[in-house]
Amino acid sequence: MKDFSFYAPTEVVFGKESEEMVADLVKKYGGTKVLVHYGGMSAKRSGLLDKVCGLLTEGGIEFVLLGGVVPNPRLSKVKEGIALCREKGLDFILAIGGGSVIDSSKAIAYGVPYEGDVWDFYLGKAEPQTCLPVASVLTIPAAGSEMSEASVITNEDGDIKLGYSNNISRPKFAIMNPVRTFTLPPYQTAAGVTDIMMHTMERYFNPDGDMTVTDVIAEALMRTMKECVFEVLKNPEDYRNRAQIMWAGSLAHNDVTGNRMNGDWATHQIEHELSAMFDVTHGAGLAVVWPSWARFVMKENLSRFVRFAVNVMGVENDYTDPEGTALRGIAAMERFYHAIGMPNSIHELIGRDITDEEIKEMARKCTRNNTITQGKFKVLCTEDIETIYRMAR
Amino acid sequence: MKDFSFYAPTEVVFGKESEEMVADLVKKYGGTKVLVHYGGMSAKRSGLLDKVCGLLTEGGIEFVLLGGVVPNPRLSKVKEGIALCREKGLDFILAIGGGSVIDSSKAIAYGVPYEGDVWDFYLGKAEPQTCLPVASVLTIPAAGSEMSEASVITNEDGDIKLGYSNNISRPKFAIMNPVRTFTLPPYQTAAGVTDIMMHTMERYFNPDGDMTVTDVIAEALMRTMKECVFEVLKNPEDYRNRAQIMWAGSLAHNDVTGNRMNGDWATHQIEHELSAMFDVTHGAGLAVVWPSWARFVMKENLSRFVRFAVNVMGVENDYTDPEGTALRGIAAMERFYHAIGMPNSIHELIGRDITDEEIKEMARKCTRNNTITQGKFKVLCTEDIETIYRMAR
Repeated sequence: MKDFSFYAPTEVVFGKESEEMVADLVKKYGGTKVLVHYGGMSAKRSGLLDKVCGLLTEGGIEFVLLGGVVPNPRLSKVKEGIALCREKGLDFILAIGGGSVIDSSKAIAYGVPYEGDVWDFYLGKAEPQTCLPVASVLTIPAAGSEMSEASVITNEDGDIKLGYSNNISRPKFAIMNPVRTFTLPPYQTAAGVTDIMMHTMERYFNPDGDMTVTDVIAEALMRTMKECVFEVLKNPEDYRNRAQIMWAGSLAHNDVTGNRMNGDWATHQIEHELSAMFDVTHGAGLAVVWPSWARFVMKENLSRFVRFAVNVMGVENDYTDPEGTALRGIAAMERFYHAIGMPNSIHELIGRDITDEEIKEMARKCTRNNTITQGKFKVLCTEDIETIYRMAR
Repeated sequence: MKDFSFYAPTEVVFGKESEEMVADLVKKYGGTKVLVHYGGMSAKRSGLLDKVCGLLTEGGIEFVLLGGVVPNPRLSKVKEGIALCREKGLDFILAIGGGSVIDSSKAIAYGVPYEGDVWDFYLGKAEPQTCLPVASVLTIPAAGSEMSEASVITNEDGDIKLGYSNNISRPKFAIMNPVRTFTLPPYQTAAGVTDIMMHTMERYFNPDGDMTVTDVIAEALMRTMKECVFEVLKNPEDYRNRAQIMWAGSLAHNDVTGNRMNGDWATHQIEHELSAMFDVTHGAGLAVVWPSWARFVMKENLSRFVRFAVNVMGVENDYTDPEGTALRGIAAMERFYHAIGMPNSIHELIGRDITDEEIKEMARKCTRNNTITQGKFKVLCTEDIETIYRMAR
């Protein structure tokens, strides 16, 4: 059994009244001049941005607004944020939104005290020694960035999407009010649940598989998400089920369902190239990639896939045919994705056939020009990744 | 659904190599002159105390030793620790042991910067504004104190056992090496698992019961513990199962399995009087109290007890007879306690009949002379608590 670590210091304030705490929490964690960082119109339209700004003002906290973060958040916006923080002498970053805004905020937090280019961290050329404190008012349950150490940024110069993880950027607090997720469209809701489940699956399909208590927690969380998503697609204002999804989004990425460092993460990496090239929704891309990844790698540890099929997907175990059971589990997941409105192929995802050249380019980028491999459950080289893209086309 | 908070900032380093990190971690969290606090001979005999002291010395960290903490830890020892910290100017407390040592360490941590009597906090007469940092090298999985905000101390003057909880005392780090639990005797091992399960059950039997994802995680954890304990009782050096128990002990009390503030906690309070009066093992006392508590309160929310019976205890659901199903779940838990060597009655626990006077005294203390009630699933007055003691006698 591998040694592991667990570190989830983020203070979570969850529920209908949670937003009222924002000024107190910013002060508690040392913020005096705050960058309020957000995405597009929804934070304005919903009144959340005004509410948070009002509470900060009442609390006597200065702040500067920076909006315009887009899904698959861009490096240029990060640099704009870094410049703004320096110019105004800001000492705290409050993200209002989902993973894109929080990931951007972490990147800005790394960049402000660093003399070089913040992209260095994502390229693995440097390690930050310090960063500004980050916190969030979460509106989209999906990325789990509100409790995680991870940040994924797209460099528009070459469509390169890279992640960087460092415990120093774990958010100080996360305010989660499920009511704020009522207005999420069905596609975003389903993509969010796909991402949440995938964060658990990346950890579940690890090469070790001997932390029983972690595995059963992971299975319980995944089974619950499979139920809850249908309820909120039927009734978007179902507080109870929105709450399950919102909290599961954090648990799925704060290492309760498995240690990140011992997970697989190939599906995420393979998807990152899809969303970098076609600017698609990350969760939808994951739904396309995972079944092909699963069929390609399952023989590495068939019993793990049988267990997943039976314990998560509710497939009957044919003890005489483990491979058949595993395959039926993967097919059941594919049907689940379809049922919640996620695509089942790259064609469905991008609206046209993908070319061989595009597949080759993505596989090459995914392995940094054949210099690295991906995955731990099965180690994948450039050719393997090409095969998975072809299986998913 | 009730709003809740989650705060589990303790950095966990788990595994065979975890102890090697001790000096680095003390430094990381600001310790320069450390109180190394421990219990009896086992920390010495196992070589763990020497190893930790050696690593601190190598790391250039000064320390002072204080041993002699006993189960149901005493206020007098806490005061000795406070005096020692002040005299030597210590700035960090490192607990080596289980719940008793960690709980004592938290009490010392509150007491050092406080001018009044540390017992004030436990009596609810004062709130600490600050405390010394606390951390642990865990050797007994049970209390969950290594990640919790709770501390329970016994004042020998009147055999009064009281708990106090405050987030400021959440330990900075916890080093967990399952190998260190190999030498735990069967009785302590079983009592530890009983306590771990109870920390989850106290949360599970809450008056709300609408956080599905939390409930299924709690059920998964409890089912796993029911399996693992038999494996380690059969083979005390079963690393894998010792590891499950050790990690579950933390998860059961760090609020992943339910928010502490919304839990019931009557069983704990009723047991505290037993261990204060008879100095019995806390986990063994819980095994005696819980079935009677359960039978007394179950009609408050029968469906919750049916769910527990079916999902945790594996009882067949008789849909025509929910009460029967619930009762069979409680009986199954009683048989489980018996199978792992825990007592099923106060007589078995203390080795003689308990008197009516003793029952009355415990019930009176448990409600602070009839001034408070206990429990949230069902609110219990002094007479209810007397009845539960009588049912358990």
